[in-house]
Amino acid sequence: MSSIREVALAAGVSIATVSRALSTPEKVSKNTLERVNAAIDKMDYRPNMMARNFRAARSYSIVVLVPNIANTFFSTAIRGIQSSAHKAGYAVILGNTNDSLALEKEYVNFVRTRQSDGTIQLRPHSSGSLITPELNTPVVSVCGRENSPHPSVRIDNIAAAQTLVEHLINQGHQRIGVIAGNADDPHTMDRKRGYCQAIERAGISFDETLISYGDFTLCSGVIAANHFVSMAHRPTAIFSMNDEMAIGALQSFRSAGLNPPKDFSIAGFDNIEFSKYTEPPLTTIAQPAEELGKTAFHVLLQLIEEQELPSNDIVLPYELIVRESTQNALGEL
Amino acid sequence: MSSIREVALAAGVSIATVSRALSTPEKVSKNTLERVNAAIDKMDYRPNMMARNFRAARSYSIVVLVPNIANTFFSTAIRGIQSSAHKAGYAVILGNTNDSLALEKEYVNFVRTRQSDGTIQLRPHSSGSLITPELNTPVVSVCGRENSPHPSVRIDNIAAAQTLVEHLINQGHQRIGVIAGNADDPHTMDRKRGYCQAIERAGISFDETLISYGDFTLCSGVIAANHFVSMAHRPTAIFSMNDEMAIGALQSFRSAGLNPPKDFSIAGFDNIEFSKYTEPPLTTIAQPAEELGKTAFHVLLQLIEEQELPSNDIVLPYELIVRESTQNALGEL
Repeated sequence: MSSIREVALAAGVSIATVSRALSTPEKVSKNTLERVNAAIDKMDYRPNMMARNFRAARSYSIVVLVPNIANTFFSTAIRGIQSSAHKAGYAVILGNTNDSLALEKEYVNFVRTRQSDGTIQLRPHSSGSLITPELNTPVVSVCGRENSPHPSVRIDNIAAAQTLVEHLINQGHQRIGVIAGNADDPHTMDRKRGYCQAIERAGISFDETLISYGDFTLCSGVIAANHFVSMAHRPTAIFSMNDEMAIGALQSFRSAGLNPPKDFSIAGFDNIEFSKYTEPPLTTIAQPAEELGKTAFHVLLQLIEEQELPSNDIVLPYELIVRESTQNALGEL
Repeated sequence: MSSIREVALAAGVSIATVSRALSTPEKVSKNTLERVNAAIDKMDYRPNMMARNFRAARSYSIVVLVPNIANTFFSTAIRGIQSSAHKAGYAVILGNTNDSLALEKEYVNFVRTRQSDGTIQLRPHSSGSLITPELNTPVVSVCGRENSPHPSVRIDNIAAAQTLVEHLINQGHQRIGVIAGNADDPHTMDRKRGYCQAIERAGISFDETLISYGDFTLCSGVIAANHFVSMAHRPTAIFSMNDEMAIGALQSFRSAGLNPPKDFSIAGFDNIEFSKYTEPPLTTIAQPAEELGKTAFHVLLQLIEEQELPSNDIVLPYELIVRESTQNALGEL
């Protein structure tokens, strides 16, 4: 913002006038416009020409970057963002990225030219992301991690996974298989860490063959579960890193004649609405998806309005939801 | 469209110049601007002053009005809209209306002030809607009906429901219960008409007690199914007007000790991804959700670019997907 001040000083006008000259030049007198434009050239005001698209012109729009809008957890979070944004008079522009950094980049460029006021990123910040703090634009991560480069609203994924795995251990399970997400996904890493902490505390040694990687889709749950079905020494319980993969896995297990909770226990993560209606209903971790979205918008609004944030890392509570898919260990799967 | 032409004629300039005078007056000479403004006043060009927000200013944004973005069918359609819009350089602004006409109205006002180029409405036009042709703004309905006031992209819901119910009748079912959507919903009405046509052709008389109304949510499927469970003379098959309600209904039936396809048949509608993973997998009608979204955007773009539409009512093919939840009738439920 200091450079817009310099332009204003050089042009002998107010900051508001510079802002108006940039956003709605038709509302500024020809003489003033010429002076402002001359000052802009003189001060080499390029970086803030871009910032104009995000801030000065206040578009009352935000962009939501989402890996896959057809995923129930994300669409519920977006419903929360939309509800709060709408109350504040903000439009929500949708950026479905298909988890591609190239598409994410396109949206960033799109944002630049479209005068959006800020971005909510519905995934943890990954190292290759082009949405860096250097862009100098308000960004909030939903489902972020500790030490995220952007302010973040999330649950504690490590503690949540640990809680869930401890629930399985308390039921007597010692050999617990994991249907993980993509190996390089920050959520996968955090939830795996929670799993490791829980088994370590219980004195169970880590066995890499008990981790089967998917990509958080229903179909990948089917494939990951087949790994366990084909094992000579099967686990007695499965921790799936989201509900979709658990629902896909249930189908694999049923095809193999294995039915929870009789033959094995299985738990998911997210508490999507469908998890209540599976056969049997799924034990899972409830993430407050809608609340995460609402909170993220409020943090973003504080950034847009250049208010001091009370915290850069807001952690909302999760909840262990125990349903019929988990019960006391009887034998191996 | 005629009125912008009249203004252009009266001002002695091209339509493009009138458009430019409205959207970016700074790019038009003072003399031309004065002539255009005089012509606007003379022609009482008010409706198109509003239309400027939608058209002339070409915001490269569209608004998508969706009853509930957390519904899988809608979020998949939006993924299609987004994918096509993105390729054309258009932003998608999300309007989650919670099926409320009041919220829809707010979005219409929002659209007016935000210079969106057009609207896609992800539901059939209802009589109370404030998005009327008089608004003179490009609107496309996805999942519309015949004789919609706006161009529409849809499947033939009557024929699709009829096909599904005929499938049940061909399996020997005579007493077919219906889990309907909201009674006043245009989809409910069309799908009920398809049901009635199928049973009438088969010489089965209509029985109102076999229709149980829900609201297209999982939870409403549970409640609607309880109606059938409590009947003295139960149906042998259930046609649910969407997959979500069928999935909810499966839980009610299971609780009552009734399991398809052994004890009864059940079919859904939409072919959402979860329908493949239920126990048993669900017979359903596949709607090309993503394709409906993509096509709707292309129609909207033609409207925005003021091209002649080849058709005001594009009907895409549906497909009957037969899975294990339906089989030959054995006895009553």
